[in-house]
Amino acid sequence: MKTLATLEPLTTRLLEIRRIQSAASVLSWDQETYMPAGGGAARAEQIATLEGLAHEKLVSPEVEKLLTEWIDPSSGQATDTWDEPSRSLLRETWRDFSRAKKLPSDFVIRLSRECSLAQQTWVTAREENRFSKFLPSLKTILELKRDEARYLGYRDSPYDALLDTYEPGATVAQLTPLFAQLRARLVPLLQRVQASTVTIDDSCLHQSFDQTKQLEFGRLVLVAMGYDFERGRLDLSAHPFTTSFHPTDVRVTTRVFEKDLPSCLFSCIHEGGHGLYDQGLDPRFYGSPLGESVSLGFHESQSRLWENCIGRSRAFWQCFYPILQHTFPQQLNAVSLDQFYAAINRAAPSLIRVEADELTYNLHIMLRVEIEQALIEGRAEPEDLPGLWNEKMQSYLGIVPERDADGVLQDVHWSMGAFGYFPTYTLGNLYSVQFFEQAKQEISQLEENVAAGHLIPLRQWLEQKIHRWGRMFTPDHLARRVTGNGVSPEPFLRYLETKYSELYRL
Amino acid sequence: MKTLATLEPLTTRLLEIRRIQSAASVLSWDQETYMPAGGGAARAEQIATLEGLAHEKLVSPEVEKLLTEWIDPSSGQATDTWDEPSRSLLRETWRDFSRAKKLPSDFVIRLSRECSLAQQTWVTAREENRFSKFLPSLKTILELKRDEARYLGYRDSPYDALLDTYEPGATVAQLTPLFAQLRARLVPLLQRVQASTVTIDDSCLHQSFDQTKQLEFGRLVLVAMGYDFERGRLDLSAHPFTTSFHPTDVRVTTRVFEKDLPSCLFSCIHEGGHGLYDQGLDPRFYGSPLGESVSLGFHESQSRLWENCIGRSRAFWQCFYPILQHTFPQQLNAVSLDQFYAAINRAAPSLIRVEADELTYNLHIMLRVEIEQALIEGRAEPEDLPGLWNEKMQSYLGIVPERDADGVLQDVHWSMGAFGYFPTYTLGNLYSVQFFEQAKQEISQLEENVAAGHLIPLRQWLEQKIHRWGRMFTPDHLARRVTGNGVSPEPFLRYLETKYSELYRL
Repeated sequence: MKTLATLEPLTTRLLEIRRIQSAASVLSWDQETYMPAGGGAARAEQIATLEGLAHEKLVSPEVEKLLTEWIDPSSGQATDTWDEPSRSLLRETWRDFSRAKKLPSDFVIRLSRECSLAQQTWVTAREENRFSKFLPSLKTILELKRDEARYLGYRDSPYDALLDTYEPGATVAQLTPLFAQLRARLVPLLQRVQASTVTIDDSCLHQSFDQTKQLEFGRLVLVAMGYDFERGRLDLSAHPFTTSFHPTDVRVTTRVFEKDLPSCLFSCIHEGGHGLYDQGLDPRFYGSPLGESVSLGFHESQSRLWENCIGRSRAFWQCFYPILQHTFPQQLNAVSLDQFYAAINRAAPSLIRVEADELTYNLHIMLRVEIEQALIEGRAEPEDLPGLWNEKMQSYLGIVPERDADGVLQDVHWSMGAFGYFPTYTLGNLYSVQFFEQAKQEISQLEENVAAGHLIPLRQWLEQKIHRWGRMFTPDHLARRVTGNGVSPEPFLRYLETKYSELYRL
Repeated sequence: MKTLATLEPLTTRLLEIRRIQSAASVLSWDQETYMPAGGGAARAEQIATLEGLAHEKLVSPEVEKLLTEWIDPSSGQATDTWDEPSRSLLRETWRDFSRAKKLPSDFVIRLSRECSLAQQTWVTAREENRFSKFLPSLKTILELKRDEARYLGYRDSPYDALLDTYEPGATVAQLTPLFAQLRARLVPLLQRVQASTVTIDDSCLHQSFDQTKQLEFGRLVLVAMGYDFERGRLDLSAHPFTTSFHPTDVRVTTRVFEKDLPSCLFSCIHEGGHGLYDQGLDPRFYGSPLGESVSLGFHESQSRLWENCIGRSRAFWQCFYPILQHTFPQQLNAVSLDQFYAAINRAAPSLIRVEADELTYNLHIMLRVEIEQALIEGRAEPEDLPGLWNEKMQSYLGIVPERDADGVLQDVHWSMGAFGYFPTYTLGNLYSVQFFEQAKQEISQLEENVAAGHLIPLRQWLEQKIHRWGRMFTPDHLARRVTGNGVSPEPFLRYLETKYSELYRL
């Protein structure tokens, strides 16, 4: 049986490619955190050069020769007998190679450049609340993504080709009924919440909170989660994100507003969940698919599990609320734990996705997915966006933003060319509850541990069950290994119905 | 006559190479400013990968073919008739190409990796005051640099091969008499200063100064100098430095100590001088030698001109001292301008080069140059260094450090493999006075302008005379264009003798 040792000529090349991609990620991180505004155009070219090089090296005849020596190109299956890591490595590398091979190098360079530039344009367009400023960039990006879908190929919808980038195997055909199931139970649940006689006051979260202290508290929670600052950093950016250059250098960002305690708090926990995944990947496999996260849905499951199942749980705040009160005595000493717990879980239609409660969050996703699917399939054009957005907000959430900055301009994703990314947020939400329920069964006294501030057992469980495997298994296979089932809305819906029934006495 | 348009196939390739190198510079900047400690090993490999790629592309058959089409390889001269920018571009690209061609790619990668790692080791060795911790890295780097000198080739000394990297055309044969001339007049001048009845008290500089306010003042001076923060940043690092990724993204760093006002102040002005050079390069030529600084001696002339001829002048402080007093009223209101001016110019043997006064500074350089020349020529070994260092400190400056951290471990250069770099500091000092004297002749009422806080005319003069030319001329040629002379110690010595005679009433 052949092992990874046989694959060394291949993995050496993959390692070089990964280092180039990691360098590009450093340049992107810098662009979002510290780069002076004037440096944007040159930076877009530098990143595009690196992305182009990485692509060129991946689709090179040398890599193709190494791969086809061991893989049957028609089936994508490994020939010969290999151990499991080698088989997985070949399967996933073939996936990356054959997808990349469909894209011309000059297209990859152009897409990278346009996305860097569009992202910078988006930042100012949002600041200035001017959709028209962003429109030309969006048109360019959309055309490129339509081209990309054509290059990649698809059976049913061009949107499938893009979806598969972020969530291997996911399709419109699979997602449509799943979203319908969610909608069918979330909308009535929201209506019952809104009709409840219980009203939750969350004004305690919108007093004045010193920004430095908010950041310190966020940092404290990250440390408690086991996020390793020797191998990470916390910085500020317009849109919180996590990026990794290697398991020894995984960085998270947040944003902080004086009058909005949840923003910094929950983005720290959320990005910390992403950060733990990347810090938990096996450094020996850096450069190969075995050292990469399995899908964005899985990645999001980690951030949402920490943000919601832990960060919005009563158990977590039994330990951390006294510390938070100690940090902000003037603001919180008169607020009880129950009041605080209710406030951070208040459900109400709102404009901003990243600040939405767990109940309405997926409605935000659905409207985005419908819009981007229509855009990619050519059923809508960028000019239609503000109108389409507001119409769907009205239909799903019953409210409409007054400013595009709080509407169609709120998310960075389309400027980054990340069409097909949003569905992974919903998949992540569903997975997060599935994994958390499994964790509760397998970790003895998990809730008591959390209530005592001991979060490390959970982190270790996630590392052992998910992080360290990289792309050894497909997403669906890994989900079944962990929970016995593929993705399913049922546990998520039950979790929400229980939580909100109690909160709103439904 | 052929023009740059003809060279486009070449400059397109050079641009790609420069972008890769700029990406490596971003990774190095990050390593020195924000990278978490755990990320060091992976980072060294990422930088080495990029450096290796850039080298591989520069020495590629494609570039060689393009160059030899237009250059006679035996003479390095352009064949055919070209306009001046094209001729310069070909000459300088040939220089870069033929030097790079002598180095094997795997050597370049190894050197880059070892230097990144050694630099990180140096940081902790200095912190812990343990030369023995740095010694193995230093041995490795020295062996590599000796190899490099052999690869590059030389006539007289292997040190010449390394010198030429930083200061094209400079040789031991040229520098030795120049250093002797300096020593012959600086040592007696220092003796006269030490024998003077005037004693200068600089304790006013070592009171307690709020670090944030120090940084704010440093930033204010940078703005006054014309350093453009839209195209730059100021950050903190262990060793202040300037780096550039493009003329639109040029970054400086400083360090700040509560009880040492000059450290942050003068490193800001110094690095600002470097920063103005890099911001003053013509962005249209980014990627070609015409968009690069002509030599490190020239680069240092810019930083030292600003730091010393401006930053330690009475005229400058006529405008800025009242602002500094306003920033630190408690500490400085009782200190007169004359007292402050004397304090920042106090001459006395000291341990740390970067904090040395103008008079003793070059003595620090000389001992380093003698040591590194001996190391490269095989007349000394790394083990000898602490002893050699202290012996030469005694001989040149009459003092000996108690800790290696304040002695042989103080500079980052050898850990970076920058052997042959130190002489450019002395060349920079000499050029700085030559350029400043020329500026005084050509800019009407320069001193009055400086005294009124108007520094922009000087910046513009330097940009027009030096920055914008890139490597159009050789260093010697450019010096003659600007001042009518090559490098000369005479103006520098006269300037110092005048300044210190007045300060110490000699």
